[in-house]
Amino acid sequence: MTHSPLHEYLAHGQTPFFRLPLPDAASPEQADAVIFGVPYDGGTTYQPGARLGPYHVRRLSGLVQPFHPEFGIDPFQTIAVADGGNVPAPPFNAGAMREFVQGRTAQIVGSGARPYAVGGDHSITLPILRALTEKHGPVAVVHFDAHFDTSDDSVWGEAYHHGTPIRHALAEGLIAEQSLFQIGIRGTYKDPTEADFAASHGARLITAEAVADTGPRQLGQEIVAAVGERPVYITLDVDGIDPAFAPGTGTPVPGGLTSREAISLMRSLAGLNVVGMDLVEIAPAMDHADATSLLGAHLLYEGIALAARFAAA
Amino acid sequence: MTHSPLHEYLAHGQTPFFRLPLPDAASPEQADAVIFGVPYDGGTTYQPGARLGPYHVRRLSGLVQPFHPEFGIDPFQTIAVADGGNVPAPPFNAGAMREFVQGRTAQIVGSGARPYAVGGDHSITLPILRALTEKHGPVAVVHFDAHFDTSDDSVWGEAYHHGTPIRHALAEGLIAEQSLFQIGIRGTYKDPTEADFAASHGARLITAEAVADTGPRQLGQEIVAAVGERPVYITLDVDGIDPAFAPGTGTPVPGGLTSREAISLMRSLAGLNVVGMDLVEIAPAMDHADATSLLGAHLLYEGIALAARFAAA
Amino acid sequence: MTHSPLHEYLAHGQTPFFRLPLPDAASPEQADAVIFGVPYDGGTTYQPGARLGPYHVRRLSGLVQPFHPEFGIDPFQTIAVADGGNVPAPPFNAGAMREFVQGRTAQIVGSGARPYAVGGDHSITLPILRALTEKHGPVAVVHFDAHFDTSDDSVWGEAYHHGTPIRHALAEGLIAEQSLFQIGIRGTYKDPTEADFAASHGARLITAEAVADTGPRQLGQEIVAAVGERPVYITLDVDGIDPAFAPGTGTPVPGGLTSREAISLMRSLAGLNVVGMDLVEIAPAMDHADATSLLGAHLLYEGIALAARFAAA
Amino acid sequence: MTHSPLHEYLAHGQTPFFRLPLPDAASPEQADAVIFGVPYDGGTTYQPGARLGPYHVRRLSGLVQPFHPEFGIDPFQTIAVADGGNVPAPPFNAGAMREFVQGRTAQIVGSGARPYAVGGDHSITLPILRALTEKHGPVAVVHFDAHFDTSDDSVWGEAYHHGTPIRHALAEGLIAEQSLFQIGIRGTYKDPTEADFAASHGARLITAEAVADTGPRQLGQEIVAAVGERPVYITLDVDGIDPAFAPGTGTPVPGGLTSREAISLMRSLAGLNVVGMDLVEIAPAMDHADATSLLGAHLLYEGIALAARFAAA
Amino acid sequence: MTHSPLHEYLAHGQTPFFRLPLPDAASPEQADAVIFGVPYDGGTTYQPGARLGPYHVRRLSGLVQPFHPEFGIDPFQTIAVADGGNVPAPPFNAGAMREFVQGRTAQIVGSGARPYAVGGDHSITLPILRALTEKHGPVAVVHFDAHFDTSDDSVWGEAYHHGTPIRHALAEGLIAEQSLFQIGIRGTYKDPTEADFAASHGARLITAEAVADTGPRQLGQEIVAAVGERPVYITLDVDGIDPAFAPGTGTPVPGGLTSREAISLMRSLAGLNVVGMDLVEIAPAMDHADATSLLGAHLLYEGIALAARFAAA
Amino acid sequence: MTHSPLHEYLAHGQTPFFRLPLPDAASPEQADAVIFGVPYDGGTTYQPGARLGPYHVRRLSGLVQPFHPEFGIDPFQTIAVADGGNVPAPPFNAGAMREFVQGRTAQIVGSGARPYAVGGDHSITLPILRALTEKHGPVAVVHFDAHFDTSDDSVWGEAYHHGTPIRHALAEGLIAEQSLFQIGIRGTYKDPTEADFAASHGARLITAEAVADTGPRQLGQEIVAAVGERPVYITLDVDGIDPAFAPGTGTPVPGGLTSREAISLMRSLAGLNVVGMDLVEIAPAMDHADATSLLGAHLLYEGIALAARFAAA
Repeated sequence: MTHSPLHEYLAHGQTPFFRLPLPDAASPEQADAVIFGVPYDGGTTYQPGARLGPYHVRRLSGLVQPFHPEFGIDPFQTIAVADGGNVPAPPFNAGAMREFVQGRTAQIVGSGARPYAVGGDHSITLPILRALTEKHGPVAVVHFDAHFDTSDDSVWGEAYHHGTPIRHALAEGLIAEQSLFQIGIRGTYKDPTEADFAASHGARLITAEAVADTGPRQLGQEIVAAVGERPVYITLDVDGIDPAFAPGTGTPVPGGLTSREAISLMRSLAGLNVVGMDLVEIAPAMDHADATSLLGAHLLYEGIALAARFAAA
Repeated sequence: MTHSPLHEYLAHGQTPFFRLPLPDAASPEQADAVIFGVPYDGGTTYQPGARLGPYHVRRLSGLVQPFHPEFGIDPFQTIAVADGGNVPAPPFNAGAMREFVQGRTAQIVGSGARPYAVGGDHSITLPILRALTEKHGPVAVVHFDAHFDTSDDSVWGEAYHHGTPIRHALAEGLIAEQSLFQIGIRGTYKDPTEADFAASHGARLITAEAVADTGPRQLGQEIVAAVGERPVYITLDVDGIDPAFAPGTGTPVPGGLTSREAISLMRSLAGLNVVGMDLVEIAPAMDHADATSLLGAHLLYEGIALAARFAAA
Repeated sequence: MTHSPLHEYLAHGQTPFFRLPLPDAASPEQADAVIFGVPYDGGTTYQPGARLGPYHVRRLSGLVQPFHPEFGIDPFQTIAVADGGNVPAPPFNAGAMREFVQGRTAQIVGSGARPYAVGGDHSITLPILRALTEKHGPVAVVHFDAHFDTSDDSVWGEAYHHGTPIRHALAEGLIAEQSLFQIGIRGTYKDPTEADFAASHGARLITAEAVADTGPRQLGQEIVAAVGERPVYITLDVDGIDPAFAPGTGTPVPGGLTSREAISLMRSLAGLNVVGMDLVEIAPAMDHADATSLLGAHLLYEGIALAARFAAA
Repeated sequence: MTHSPLHEYLAHGQTPFFRLPLPDAASPEQADAVIFGVPYDGGTTYQPGARLGPYHVRRLSGLVQPFHPEFGIDPFQTIAVADGGNVPAPPFNAGAMREFVQGRTAQIVGSGARPYAVGGDHSITLPILRALTEKHGPVAVVHFDAHFDTSDDSVWGEAYHHGTPIRHALAEGLIAEQSLFQIGIRGTYKDPTEADFAASHGARLITAEAVADTGPRQLGQEIVAAVGERPVYITLDVDGIDPAFAPGTGTPVPGGLTSREAISLMRSLAGLNVVGMDLVEIAPAMDHADATSLLGAHLLYEGIALAARFAAA
Repeated sequence: MTHSPLHEYLAHGQTPFFRLPLPDAASPEQADAVIFGVPYDGGTTYQPGARLGPYHVRRLSGLVQPFHPEFGIDPFQTIAVADGGNVPAPPFNAGAMREFVQGRTAQIVGSGARPYAVGGDHSITLPILRALTEKHGPVAVVHFDAHFDTSDDSVWGEAYHHGTPIRHALAEGLIAEQSLFQIGIRGTYKDPTEADFAASHGARLITAEAVADTGPRQLGQEIVAAVGERPVYITLDVDGIDPAFAPGTGTPVPGGLTSREAISLMRSLAGLNVVGMDLVEIAPAMDHADATSLLGAHLLYEGIALAARFAAA
Repeated sequence: MTHSPLHEYLAHGQTPFFRLPLPDAASPEQADAVIFGVPYDGGTTYQPGARLGPYHVRRLSGLVQPFHPEFGIDPFQTIAVADGGNVPAPPFNAGAMREFVQGRTAQIVGSGARPYAVGGDHSITLPILRALTEKHGPVAVVHFDAHFDTSDDSVWGEAYHHGTPIRHALAEGLIAEQSLFQIGIRGTYKDPTEADFAASHGARLITAEAVADTGPRQLGQEIVAAVGERPVYITLDVDGIDPAFAPGTGTPVPGGLTSREAISLMRSLAGLNVVGMDLVEIAPAMDHADATSLLGAHLLYEGIALAARFAAA
């Protein structure tokens, strides 16, 4: 399941994640990490479109070269990674999406692999965490986002949408105490309740400005020190990055991380036991020249490289 | 409630439909026609985004001049037209949308006015028809679309979405017999069942190619002759128009009507008793230079002009 | 090798042509028609970018429904169609491209299947015709284009590029006498020599204006009558269509066919023995909202449907 | 002053109109036709941007090949055509613009050449007509536009802007009686006064729908018959063309001419004594893939070809 | 006049600034701050289009949440803010614009409110300052821009356009001595005269590079210390921000502030007595995915929050 | 050969680099620096389009003002700079391109001038260096890029393309020992061989992250100190800059330099004896609002200013 050479990849004309072998329904993957798409954006409150994210992230991921210059490894040769296809669900059936995603994640986790999901909107994160913690217990969560995602049902009369996954994860005990790191938060708030909720559960708030002030490398080391051996899940909402670098998203907020900061921060998490990751809220219709999908593919690669590095250590 | 002069319109800086007075929650409109937005696209099966349609159609409608050169009237001086604001619903709650839209339509119809709705996706049409036929009984329907919209629940496991409104309307008896005109149908089908369902209910299929062959004026006269005195509802899915003229939509099909044909066809319906209309599936994120919203605004104007002409006759 | 149901297609997350099964290097296709991509644009004289055409046409082809409403068949159930992957070649090695494409076509033709190629630029057509005529002898050619493509080496000092395939095909005797139909020609010429060359080889010139004047259905019937039983190859340069409908191309010329005319004309070729086809010059970087790739996918489908209809007759 | 071969044109890297020689301030042109740009859009009432039109029309005009397939001539070899550079004026000084444009036109006309102007907005037409009629007396005018351009100062409190040139030209007697042909008019009106003003001056109203109904060739012949020997000026506002074909303009109206109709109509004017032309309202910021500038360049070429054909006859 | 809850805002379908109540011509606002648009770009020297800024900034401002996380206040509950509609003026009448804007500002200032203007081009600033200083006397000015805007009439033969407001404000004594802070200046100059003029009037030049070197927080504190109690006016030309973050502007210069720096700098001005602000040069036609309008809305919010914080202190 | 005043530049309507005089084939330039375009992208491995770079960089360069605020000079008055036109070559003939570019460079160098080339893709650099080192011997090279460009023929079976110029330059001894500075390298690698090759030839690797960490000014000073008196060539692949600032390029990699860093770094090279420069890989079809071409023009100006400053010192 290693990364294909360029010619082989070009020959079949498909675009599996990172030039991995094509998904094969007949023979289930035996992998250390399985990347799957969730083409669902029924949980979007403002501009939808993230349901098409998996197709474009797959296409652009072919441009990501396999060798990690800092870790000195090709993660696809260090651990076995598979393109696990998609988990489709009707765009108007949130319950089905949660059921299917939780089931698929449980299957992957059950086989001993790490799940890497490409959304889709941020409402896909909750069922992944539910399945993941079935195995690992409460996990540390590194959360890139412009928003807290700890909203309740007061705005939309609905408990489950893309603004609430972290609230549920905290409330359900899926996140270990003092182990939530919210990076890139910025802009203004509806009111202080979301921030207060997160803080009351021990979340560490790291604004986009703080990333610049502290420096992404220093910040990453602090997170590594705080987390220690605990299994870590990374949930990366692309709107954590500034819209200049990631215009293709539905609820952009100016003042975010640069792509350089995001990549450096990911790399500085070396040593963490990353047990899963998601990349969400890439909305191709608002993108330009595929910039957001390309950046997303690079960040997803870094998440895989972290797992590979941990496995290799 | 007439169209504002340009300076007055520019002065408040808002963009009510066709420079009409701003919606006023305090004093409910006394109007012959009420235009309202339905910023809902939770029924979209492929590319979403139509929820933002009402904002952009409002903005562009300010460019539509009020005097109809063919009818010789200013419809806003012939009948009283109001911007009725929006009917908001959570994007993930189809039931709430249907309830709210049906209620709002019933209110408008109950006050003696004609409803004009701007979507939003095509799933908003069913609740409008339900409320409208409460008053008028089964109506004739002039339906612009690339698709039949007579799908069932076999594809998505859900009976109500933007591919099914005409099926329900036919099945529920909301459309008078032999009084459905489906204009702009084209492309290929999943299978013949949708076409067969429509045909079995007496729908007249008018492909995009047939519009060109017959000519929009001749075609319109045939529809007028067939409908006679019966109340008519126009449901205009912008994908009935070719994507060259209306790129901003979620399920485009090449080979559609030109904008000139669509406008001519609308004008050739003069004489019909238009009791309501919707304009759906305008997805601004895929638009270019506001072309689709502008065209939509023109077509909506023509629908209002038809009612005004009927009233003036 | 039939068209996949939507859910199965969504599940693997790849985008084979028309939801066909994924290419399988291990088991060569046993098919009646093989669609393959040629991601090569090294023969482009003005704006390049068509090398990325196969990826985008594949992605959009998933939106083309399988049932042909006019022929009354699902071509994917009538004949076996396969996604044959790509024929990659270095973008700066025209000779390698010609060798690989001719070899791949010969392999397909040798297995009894019809080749359908998606470019890439128009220089891919010559090696296809060379291989195809090895089996069939000189073929009739239906050629959609804004240009004659009968240029010589006087402009660029090079005999083989995207402006010369028809010259070579005529000169090499690959096209049967009186059997070249050039549709959509328009604009202005460098000088009369290209037109004269084509005319001197018996080509029938059908300008874009003539398509409108004669009507695509009548025109198609004339072509069918003229060709008779002879094997036919369709080469469809997307710039034959007007840039309003197909903006994503490198040498656009205003005044071209509408997409409706192009589709009607393709359908009116029913009865022809289509033995192969190519779709070239789709340059995604200049496209808007995937309109050109979507139109291209529809036209490619029509070409497959023609073969299926012939086989079924 | 003939059209340059491609290599020479590519070598200097500039983009004079139609690959003509670079403007040379030192040696004034001796030409039969002089093309000049007017980068002024200070007369725009809605979306500005046309001031950048000359740069983009120049760039795209290099794609227009020189040989006219219908007239059988290379107009650049039939008459001497020069790129006369630009007439710059401050964007906020309408009076200066009118003075400079009138002066430049007078100079061109005085030298025996025909002026061809590329705007800029439609307010540049009046000073051209003023200078032109100094020599020719009242001229016939073929006017492509979505609008009458016979507005008065009631809307903006200003007599001279891009909505008024035809009113002034009629009022000042610059247009010969019964010799104004307004082609492409459509949409709705502020009120009937503009249409009435035009009609009262003998203008012939040819709506976009009428172009389709009559056919551009028949229509052109009628115009030729009506005009006879009289000198003709063509003023082509690109919004006469439908926004699908010409999106890059500031006051688009759906339902316009196709590019094919526009080109055919221009060609059908063969025989007219075209003594000047302008091409206005191309706003590159709203264009896509240079489509509008390219179409404009083709239409400008046709206007030059008409003069060349007349000269050659 | 507080910020509306989301549902109420969605219900009327209009887009007043920051979900404020709709402008009401009948009852003049009683407000502490009045935001008004100036849809005028007749002072633009290069690419126009900023006249449409107010419509798009209004629309995007609905995404800005009301609670300021750093100041700990909802400014719309701290001070009364109103959407004051627009001040329309013909795009070709600079004198009328200046008269109307000065009059409107005087009215607002006279009522005890702070004016917040959304342009439009930078030529709207001078009449605002003229009216504002009638009340306050010379003010301190915090000026974000890529350019000095101290040009004279030598280039365009006109003293008043978007490159000259600061020159006039200095020359007319509207700016207090040693109290002009020009932030974001960069690129190259026509010659040193503009810089010299500013320097000779005591302006502090803070290049974009200096913002990065000093840090926006430190820089803001220095400005606060320098200004002290003096009334401050903020004029924010969006081209002060880098085109990566604010592409929708007419005279972009690379190397500008990041959006994060701009927001941090605005926040670090806490303590200043902000008596008015403008946000200018947002040209929607050049924007992508509404990024510039959204950023502009956030920066405008920060300017309001500064006034609210000062009022609350 | 000084920079033209704005009015003169606007008057001829052409867009020579930096408003320089139009290229004049009749009288060869006598210049200290000659800027020429190379509209060739036949060496592109992924997305082509850079062949159109020279046209757009020329057009945008007119916006770059001539006075350098840091160096205190107008470089166009310090040294004589000429627009040397283009070096055209067929897009499918790499050998011809290399021959023509080497010849043109030799001619420029032979006349005592410095060559400044605007690509086109990065394969144009090798022939320039070959000609340049004929005169200067091995030069120092400051290389901005996301990639090493030290690839070999293993991927594409071809030794010369846009991924190999630095390999050849090192292998051929065109670069002085310990004098290659590779700035902006980032992302991931195919494998370590390219980095190893560069390192084995003494290249100094300066990642994009290192630019931020060290600071562009400090970094520039280190380069100046290391290079000393040696002649320096700057090769600036625009993908060295982050795609947020330079989206118009064919092989973008996130995490790059900001435009501010790039400009500061260029300015901090003051004192170097810059003997030539190229600016490559600007692909206009992927650009937005001309941002990349504008940035490229600014960076090219800085390269000219370095030479002027050296000459003036």
